[in-house]
Amino acid sequence: MKLENDIALAMRLADAAAEAIRPHFRTVAAERKGDATPVTLADRAAEEAMRRILTAEVPRDTIIGEEFGSTAGSSGRSWVLDPIDGTAGFLAGRPIFGTLIALVVEGFPVLGVLDQPITGERWVGAMGKRTTLNGKPVQTRICRELSEATLATTGPHYFDDHDGGHFMGLAAKTDHKRMVMGGDCYNYAMLATGQLDVVCEANLKLHDWAALVPIVEGAGGTMADWNGDPLHAGSDGHVIALGDPARLEDVVEALACAH
Amino acid sequence: MKLENDIALAMRLADAAAEAIRPHFRTVAAERKGDATPVTLADRAAEEAMRRILTAEVPRDTIIGEEFGSTAGSSGRSWVLDPIDGTAGFLAGRPIFGTLIALVVEGFPVLGVLDQPITGERWVGAMGKRTTLNGKPVQTRICRELSEATLATTGPHYFDDHDGGHFMGLAAKTDHKRMVMGGDCYNYAMLATGQLDVVCEANLKLHDWAALVPIVEGAGGTMADWNGDPLHAGSDGHVIALGDPARLEDVVEALACAH
Repeated sequence: MKLENDIALAMRLADAAAEAIRPHFRTVAAERKGDATPVTLADRAAEEAMRRILTAEVPRDTIIGEEFGSTAGSSGRSWVLDPIDGTAGFLAGRPIFGTLIALVVEGFPVLGVLDQPITGERWVGAMGKRTTLNGKPVQTRICRELSEATLATTGPHYFDDHDGGHFMGLAAKTDHKRMVMGGDCYNYAMLATGQLDVVCEANLKLHDWAALVPIVEGAGGTMADWNGDPLHAGSDGHVIALGDPARLEDVVEALACAH
Repeated sequence: MKLENDIALAMRLADAAAEAIRPHFRTVAAERKGDATPVTLADRAAEEAMRRILTAEVPRDTIIGEEFGSTAGSSGRSWVLDPIDGTAGFLAGRPIFGTLIALVVEGFPVLGVLDQPITGERWVGAMGKRTTLNGKPVQTRICRELSEATLATTGPHYFDDHDGGHFMGLAAKTDHKRMVMGGDCYNYAMLATGQLDVVCEANLKLHDWAALVPIVEGAGGTMADWNGDPLHAGSDGHVIALGDPARLEDVVEALACAH
């Protein structure tokens, strides 16, 4: 029953974040953080709303938020929050950004929520459960050959030259005509929903990927770093997701060849 | 009243296309055309539905469709149809593809509709009228400096090496951190809605851009080729859109420098 309670709590966090975000969509003037990542009033309002609930309900849990950093707890459980993943897309008016909520227990993400507050789509993944989209089960699709795989990444400008070369090595081995750019977390949700086959990114932080692991894996896929090793809190931010785990070796091999 | 009648007809085309498209979203198995552009059953069903209406209502008008080519008329008026602009995005499950409907009279697009059947968003632009989103007026935003501009393009893989170099020349002069990839026609709609500043693409066909001209210009923006010259039916497919026409010279100059 504990996991059910955590899922219910995560639903309330997502509701609160959505309510904080919606009024700002396509209206806010943007501001800048020191690192020049775009961030909005919505981002902060949503994280504050989620932190308020967590502080009241599970005061012993750690909170790690993209906007306001870490508040240490003592339970060994951490809520990892990215109120708006895809801030550039949000600022560009696209309804495919997402609120990411993960529960990490002893370093392992056991629960993940991706909420899209404009389209009203919510993906939920939890250890030992089938991933759902608005309550209905979803699953990844089979991919028999890497050459038939649809690849997604948010943009080449998120890679440095070295990583970009390796990404191109992968892209060259996939179905180039169907590759899609942009999308941020939404790409992983689409992979979990059987709409694309591989997502490949670099420079992700824990809050960018923790919620996606239970969502992708509960739908039949797998996530790893660019070497094919499991992701963990200390991973270097090079992330791949596959709808069909049978293609992991092919993807890792293709990534190893710079193009 | 003639233009009002044409707008009403275009609304019916968009309704018919949306109805044909929706059942296929996130469900269809994809097929291929000779040029390997992804295309779906939805694409064909939507164009057929629109052609059926046009043939019945305005039999003397020319129809130029992305899927089924040209049916010549004698009125000097052409309906230019792209049932699904953004087929790769459609196949990847993103609700930001669009149905594009343009009425071109004597070579000039006088009416344009962009319909997003999943989110239920519809932009309408017509000569001498303010562009609307679901009936409400929209407008582009001011951009005082190119260095503050948000740039969008569907993906670098749609440029050849030469064009890609020139695109990078432009990208380097804009706000690189906010650049967004992916999006197809939706980027132009967001520009018309004041959410981004510049869209730059190559290899567009008439059906990809004709509907966008009245939408962008009726919202206060401008469209041109990469030399800054007006688009016309024989344009070479290098297209830029600007929310603030005052930046046209800056964009053309930046594009002239390969990076």
